[in-house]
Amino acid sequence: MGLFEYSASKELIVRLKHDADLVQTMTELVRSKGIEAGSFTVIGALKRARLGYYDQKNHEYRELKIDSPHEMASCIGNVSLKDGEPFIHAHVVLADETGNTKAGHLLEGVVFAAEVHLRQLEGPRLERKYDEVTGLSLWNME
Amino acid sequence: MGLFEYSASKELIVRLKHDADLVQTMTELVRSKGIEAGSFTVIGALKRARLGYYDQKNHEYRELKIDSPHEMASCIGNVSLKDGEPFIHAHVVLADETGNTKAGHLLEGVVFAAEVHLRQLEGPRLERKYDEVTGLSLWNME
Amino acid sequence: MGLFEYSASKELIVRLKHDADLVQTMTELVRSKGIEAGSFTVIGALKRARLGYYDQKNHEYRELKIDSPHEMASCIGNVSLKDGEPFIHAHVVLADETGNTKAGHLLEGVVFAAEVHLRQLEGPRLERKYDEVTGLSLWNME
Repeated sequence: MGLFEYSASKELIVRLKHDADLVQTMTELVRSKGIEAGSFTVIGALKRARLGYYDQKNHEYRELKIDSPHEMASCIGNVSLKDGEPFIHAHVVLADETGNTKAGHLLEGVVFAAEVHLRQLEGPRLERKYDEVTGLSLWNME
Repeated sequence: MGLFEYSASKELIVRLKHDADLVQTMTELVRSKGIEAGSFTVIGALKRARLGYYDQKNHEYRELKIDSPHEMASCIGNVSLKDGEPFIHAHVVLADETGNTKAGHLLEGVVFAAEVHLRQLEGPRLERKYDEVTGLSLWNME
Repeated sequence: MGLFEYSASKELIVRLKHDADLVQTMTELVRSKGIEAGSFTVIGALKRARLGYYDQKNHEYRELKIDSPHEMASCIGNVSLKDGEPFIHAHVVLADETGNTKAGHLLEGVVFAAEVHLRQLEGPRLERKYDEVTGLSLWNME
């Protein structure tokens, strides 16, 4: 287990732009604001999305295209550094018109409407590094 | 994109009353406490619920009735002003006895048990206003 | 309704150990750190899990085994005291390779990778107590 302690800095409330990509816009936001560590939630709706499922045995992402409008029932994510730059990691749960859900790692999500609460954290440098065991870029906390 | 900066104020831990409606009780809570901006999560279980799915083309909500007990696997929401009064916007993911889920915008949810963590935010006035593009009341951040 | 006010203390960013049980590790963490009240979110992936659905009529948990790898699309939880010791209550939404979900109360979850944001809260003693109406251990806030 790795553990870092932070203090809360700014609390940002953000309305993402209609037709923007959630992951890309959030990435631009944290880079322009110099936010290097943080945690966020989002609710709203997406026009379409691309989700990822990580194959734990073969160490590769499988992609799932969501081509229709969905409620964004949940989106939880964090901000850390990857290759020295602020990086967004987000997971979502989407719901269709019957309430049925699709969920996973958010690769791309075209915003219909999105309400973000992002907490900026101040403290140790939180950097991702390739992890042999999982094949993922995980927080280097040694 | 619109962005406002806040500072965290009180952190409220709340146990909602058995048989209360989640949305109505949370609305009463933020109004009585004078909380005009905030962010919250809830876990627990609902006896029954009414979910909304927003039809992005026709600009109208479709309702889905959930008439049986469900775990509230996730509930993420925020507080802002609508028509000058504190207003609750919440999305949920519900799970039945087989773990299958229904999710969406929470219109009504009768509480079996509910544990809330609500963060009050201090800063700019966060007011909803009718948005032509989506047909929704979105944050006016211009 | 019961309500306690807290102030935010430390914000902990934690990478859980591969193959650890999420609930057990989080329990050990809050006990070793002396965290008696808090709120957290987690995203990542689980190798397998055990979920609970609470039967609201018969007052008993039904268990659901998830024996295959899943994305942890959402995990929301809190920390309070039960029998005088820090106690973890967490709900999850899991997604399989087709994006389909299973969700509920998290009884056990074997970590593939897990990124935790835990907010420690300082304030009144938040203790669970048996509640006759629900048959659950709920926060005693009288």
